[in-house]
Amino acid sequence: MKPVLSLLVTNIGLLATPEGRHARCGDAQAEITLQHNAAMGVEDGNIAYIGPAALAPPAETVIDAKGRLATPGLIDCHTHLVFGGWRQQEFLQKLAGGSYLDILAAGGGILSTTRATRLATEADLIDKAERLLAEMLTHGVTTCEAKSGYGLSFEHECKQLRVVKALNEKGPVELVSTFMGAHALPEEFVDDREAYLALLCDTLIPLVAQEGLASFCDVFCETGVFSPTEARRLLVAAQAHGLGLKIHADEIDPIGGSLLAGELGATSAEHLIASGDEEIAALAAGGVIGVLLPATSLYLGKPYAPARRMLAGGMAVAVASDFNPGSSPSNNLQLCMNLACLGLNLTPAEALCAVTLNAAAAVGQAQRLGTLQIGKQADLLLWDAPDLEYVFYRFGSNLVYSVIKNGRQVI
Amino acid sequence: MKPVLSLLVTNIGLLATPEGRHARCGDAQAEITLQHNAAMGVEDGNIAYIGPAALAPPAETVIDAKGRLATPGLIDCHTHLVFGGWRQQEFLQKLAGGSYLDILAAGGGILSTTRATRLATEADLIDKAERLLAEMLTHGVTTCEAKSGYGLSFEHECKQLRVVKALNEKGPVELVSTFMGAHALPEEFVDDREAYLALLCDTLIPLVAQEGLASFCDVFCETGVFSPTEARRLLVAAQAHGLGLKIHADEIDPIGGSLLAGELGATSAEHLIASGDEEIAALAAGGVIGVLLPATSLYLGKPYAPARRMLAGGMAVAVASDFNPGSSPSNNLQLCMNLACLGLNLTPAEALCAVTLNAAAAVGQAQRLGTLQIGKQADLLLWDAPDLEYVFYRFGSNLVYSVIKNGRQVI
Repeated sequence: MKPVLSLLVTNIGLLATPEGRHARCGDAQAEITLQHNAAMGVEDGNIAYIGPAALAPPAETVIDAKGRLATPGLIDCHTHLVFGGWRQQEFLQKLAGGSYLDILAAGGGILSTTRATRLATEADLIDKAERLLAEMLTHGVTTCEAKSGYGLSFEHECKQLRVVKALNEKGPVELVSTFMGAHALPEEFVDDREAYLALLCDTLIPLVAQEGLASFCDVFCETGVFSPTEARRLLVAAQAHGLGLKIHADEIDPIGGSLLAGELGATSAEHLIASGDEEIAALAAGGVIGVLLPATSLYLGKPYAPARRMLAGGMAVAVASDFNPGSSPSNNLQLCMNLACLGLNLTPAEALCAVTLNAAAAVGQAQRLGTLQIGKQADLLLWDAPDLEYVFYRFGSNLVYSVIKNGRQVI
Repeated sequence: MKPVLSLLVTNIGLLATPEGRHARCGDAQAEITLQHNAAMGVEDGNIAYIGPAALAPPAETVIDAKGRLATPGLIDCHTHLVFGGWRQQEFLQKLAGGSYLDILAAGGGILSTTRATRLATEADLIDKAERLLAEMLTHGVTTCEAKSGYGLSFEHECKQLRVVKALNEKGPVELVSTFMGAHALPEEFVDDREAYLALLCDTLIPLVAQEGLASFCDVFCETGVFSPTEARRLLVAAQAHGLGLKIHADEIDPIGGSLLAGELGATSAEHLIASGDEEIAALAAGGVIGVLLPATSLYLGKPYAPARRMLAGGMAVAVASDFNPGSSPSNNLQLCMNLACLGLNLTPAEALCAVTLNAAAAVGQAQRLGTLQIGKQADLLLWDAPDLEYVFYRFGSNLVYSVIKNGRQVI
């Protein structure tokens, strides 16, 4: 019989996946479907068969999973992947008690990375980010969101976004691009906020949308960064140009970013460490996904976001690395999965949903990615693990055995 | 000219090492020697040359470090490496709020691993531990302490210790063996503590010492486990038979284990989360190294040990993984180095000393291991890092590029 499947993965000991095409809320986040002794078939890069191996159509290539656990590929839905330099020199300041905003105010922090990013060529940035993505792939990341926001000028924001576009074309990791010119006020605009906001709203947002350089617009709404009024102006402009909305909210102070996200129906709100009941209610009402970043809490010695209150309040929660050179210099999403349990107190089932289906929804791709269901893209991990709990329990080891992206075995 | 060195590592961008042959205390723990653009030569497995490459004797093999950072090999000075089974099923209990002692009291915890360890053959245990050690080696661990204490019977404690001996003979990771029959009271002695203590003191300790099955004796001195009186009896017997002394103290309650360690001049005391000023003073006065286990704090959601107060109080501090299937199912010492900074608030220099020289002292090997100095064993790591801070800052990635153990490149 002529093969009809390009790939068949047999002898999957346990297939664990959330289901559905949308982010799910509250108790539903814990609903993981488990299938024992399954096989999965791929056609044209998509999942075409799930069931007993004996009933599967013939396939060109067969992979024997040898009883391993299979889950959807991981989606890191919040990173600042593209940047010049590193900031290890700030590590000693941080250990000595210097706060994030102290370091920013002293000309370090984001603005120091901006200087290094502006000095880097597009080729430099591609080369560096490509190596980081390759490492993320070994940890199971098949899709990665990447924000601009270290260029902070017309030229260098566009450069950052072109780097993401080039990386996405190279593959195998799929990238989702977010424009975040409102990451910090650049030094040259320190006496003229209005001019920078106008550059973002009137020039960059329209250009980025028109040229397809980003799918989302994000803004850092925080004391000392951008106010809720400024964030509203930016996000309304982004929405008018068809970009999806994200907002860094309540990381330090709950100054209104979450309420704005709920009101505008943003796709996601990020950090949410300081969110209280009012903020959670607004996010739940607006269908906004809470993107929680536990590695940042660990690195900065901050509290973890109130994830259990969010689930109880009807929010859908995703978990991401926040990979960046200042507040989360780790690109290891598996470690974030461990911290989702140990720090955010999610169950393994909830945490799996948070880095697959809900993370897909947070990048607007829940219809294509994030679950192991027929018709979805075949993004699949095989784990050196007998069950789902083991993945979350054995922290600090890379337990990914094989990575299949878009139906092709890449690790 | 005939080669006089077996190996020469050239072009070390930065060589970072503590110095000295003994554990150092307080402020001295931060004294790291830094040399730029160094070369290091090896003869008979030991460091025979440190200086400019141009002045080095000829060598049979040359490794170009290409500007990388070099440090001593890492020493994981507290692990429970050899055990049967895993305990991921307890992970859900733990997340739901079940305490360590609750789980132990319910027949889970250590006693559940004891059942699995007793069922495993010596070959099973060797095979499993060997794979775990191979992973540790990729993370830079060149020497590893391993405790018994999951056998809890004459037969199975000896089996665990023979496994460690066999693994040490296989190499390349060097093992230091600790007898810890007093890890928990086995189920069959629950109505006769005295009989088990007598078995340990009168039979096992003499046998283990006589047959060279362990270098150290450790005891879990804690509420609900072994009392300070029982710990004293065990450690005095161990000391009389020439074993070095270790004690699990103040993990949950400060019931006197640290005071005992100080009084007996134990080599090390482990955990010390609940140590107060009196305990720190006793440990400092006794020259006892504090072995701190930050991954256990992370995993159990407990406070971190008061490391800064220990250094201020004149103690020497080591950091280890506590790798075990119950309270620290991670064998990643690099992650513990990150947590030494992020959780224990050590500086990178202090944390490096804590996993090299002070860890060597905690296993009684500071005269041979733990620093890069002429005459010491050539246990050396090359890191994909430009400086020491970077190693501690970039958490979650394995930054080890190459591992040299006893003068031989093994990774």
